[in-house]
Amino acid sequence: MQSARLSDDQRRDWLRLARAENVGPVAFRYLIETYGEPAKAIGAMPRLAERAGRALPPRVPSPPEAQAELDAGAALGARLLCACEPAFPPLLAALDPPPPLVWALGDAGLLHGRSVAVVGARNASAAGQRFARGLAQDLGRAGFMVVSGLARGVDGAAHEGSLETGTIAVLGGGPDDIYPPEHAGLHQRIAGRGCIVSESPPGYRAQARDFPRRNRLVSGLSLGVVVVEAELRSGSLITARLAAEQGREVFAVPGSPLDARAKGTNDLIRQGATLCESAEDVIRALGEGFGAGLREPEPAAYAHKGAEEPDAALIRRVAELLSPTPVSWDELARTAGVPAPTAYAALVELSLVGRCELLPGGLVVGA
Amino acid sequence: MQSARLSDDQRRDWLRLARAENVGPVAFRYLIETYGEPAKAIGAMPRLAERAGRALPPRVPSPPEAQAELDAGAALGARLLCACEPAFPPLLAALDPPPPLVWALGDAGLLHGRSVAVVGARNASAAGQRFARGLAQDLGRAGFMVVSGLARGVDGAAHEGSLETGTIAVLGGGPDDIYPPEHAGLHQRIAGRGCIVSESPPGYRAQARDFPRRNRLVSGLSLGVVVVEAELRSGSLITARLAAEQGREVFAVPGSPLDARAKGTNDLIRQGATLCESAEDVIRALGEGFGAGLREPEPAAYAHKGAEEPDAALIRRVAELLSPTPVSWDELARTAGVPAPTAYAALVELSLVGRCELLPGGLVVGA
Repeated sequence: MQSARLSDDQRRDWLRLARAENVGPVAFRYLIETYGEPAKAIGAMPRLAERAGRALPPRVPSPPEAQAELDAGAALGARLLCACEPAFPPLLAALDPPPPLVWALGDAGLLHGRSVAVVGARNASAAGQRFARGLAQDLGRAGFMVVSGLARGVDGAAHEGSLETGTIAVLGGGPDDIYPPEHAGLHQRIAGRGCIVSESPPGYRAQARDFPRRNRLVSGLSLGVVVVEAELRSGSLITARLAAEQGREVFAVPGSPLDARAKGTNDLIRQGATLCESAEDVIRALGEGFGAGLREPEPAAYAHKGAEEPDAALIRRVAELLSPTPVSWDELARTAGVPAPTAYAALVELSLVGRCELLPGGLVVGA
Repeated sequence: MQSARLSDDQRRDWLRLARAENVGPVAFRYLIETYGEPAKAIGAMPRLAERAGRALPPRVPSPPEAQAELDAGAALGARLLCACEPAFPPLLAALDPPPPLVWALGDAGLLHGRSVAVVGARNASAAGQRFARGLAQDLGRAGFMVVSGLARGVDGAAHEGSLETGTIAVLGGGPDDIYPPEHAGLHQRIAGRGCIVSESPPGYRAQARDFPRRNRLVSGLSLGVVVVEAELRSGSLITARLAAEQGREVFAVPGSPLDARAKGTNDLIRQGATLCESAEDVIRALGEGFGAGLREPEPAAYAHKGAEEPDAALIRRVAELLSPTPVSWDELARTAGVPAPTAYAALVELSLVGRCELLPGGLVVGA
């Protein structure tokens, strides 16, 4: 997205569009690139929704509602970072698509350092927590910021180990959502000398469904993700998968086959993750050169500029091809027999009325 | 080597040549392939030694000395298996070069099954021993023979787990060399229902220098080697390296970075060993097809047939090129400017008088 400082009005409208019903990061990016300004995109939404077959446009927060969120953030001392701004974390800007915005509470400058995520089991063993703490400490001494999710177990230990050198906690709830309760003191210390990051508005309490988005931010803020103890089918493995999809390095700490908490990490190693026994393994893999290829994707990746505006009939044709099985946008365009940019515009409009969901990575599922 | 049943005299001479001074498996193989019969090779040795610059030929045990070893083996109930015989373990025959002979005490038929070695630390943790025992049991149930070295720790546990289904203990000492003392009962049970294998004569007690040869047999008898707990620079890692050189599969059981006994296995995984959490991992990798490529190497590999006999001058030229740094036979032949088979013959003659050592894998070092 373009790099610019926003006026107060633009910032408020950016927030309104980001919080609009059915507007995920894919549609957000499309709308900003197509309409240039969030206000223009908001203005176009009734027409786009109507063309996609819905009379009522998606709900967009009013300017006072957005202002209330901005005021709540300011009251906390948090800072809103929009994806088009220079202060936005560069590794997040390199995501395709990036999150439209994040709240940062604490030292937002840490988000411009070289970061590594250290994540793992909430029910980690004492040894696993000790390892995570030491690893975070060693990574910090080597100049890395340490990113984690402020959860019990490995996450908490990783933050503790890196409080002195730079720690970044990513929350599923708002920046003031203290969870688990026993991490209240840690939350406060991170807000003081580290940085708390969240896509959610102040005052919002995390729900289970918010954690995949949180995990995408944990890996997205990091050059690599180290998984310390994880059972099979655990959230840490999702973070690892997201990291791999984002072109970030995946590390896993091995463990005894007799320990269920090592099943997930051993499985990652089997699948090609780099085996991690110490910070050295991470430092070696993430040398100076690593991450040079991680930069903001070209707008052309979305290839919608100069696309014909899809008419209602074409949108209906595309809608009929949707199914609960994810397909790629390209494949759907070929099946519909329309140019990819036009099919893509139709999909965005269908997503705005809740007919489909656009997934990062170029996939779409019917809803 | 040719497949044949030996007469009593031939067997005794085979043993004499195998036990001759300075005759390792490389020279043994060369001599047998060049002279056809061990007796003829023994007869040629004075001339070969003289040409290589030594007046006294290498010491060869007398027929009564060899007979005494045969009698001692028979008294134990052990069986001498010579590399040219059908009863010789086929996976050992596939080594290049194979050991000239082994003693087998117990059920030598087990040596013709599909085998997996389970090896590891002598000071293994209780968990590591439990894992090794269970793994050996599961491999046994899946139809594999389990090979190990009868040492304390992992080895002993692996044998115990596979006593019912087929266990093979390879000793550095003679087949009757009971070590460690607390494995006396296990030794006896393996001799009863499993098989004890050794390259050393009955009555011989293992020295430290015998273990590399023992390890080469452990991996050589096996389609794959599983390493369960191993510190860095431990014997189990040597067995793993030998296995890889022999074209056998290497498996390693991961462990916590906080446990020194996992350093070696984690390092093996880092180097490409297959991560092993259960017998399933081994069974999957060593499916029916695995090992089909492991067969007796062509005699042509040694390429000495029809070689010109090297004269004393040529042997001296080759000798001058030797150094304590291992070089390949081929490279040495090129540097000497002589055809490879001729240079190779010269090297064997030099090895017989102790001027160099021929290593499996085509390397030679000056002595």
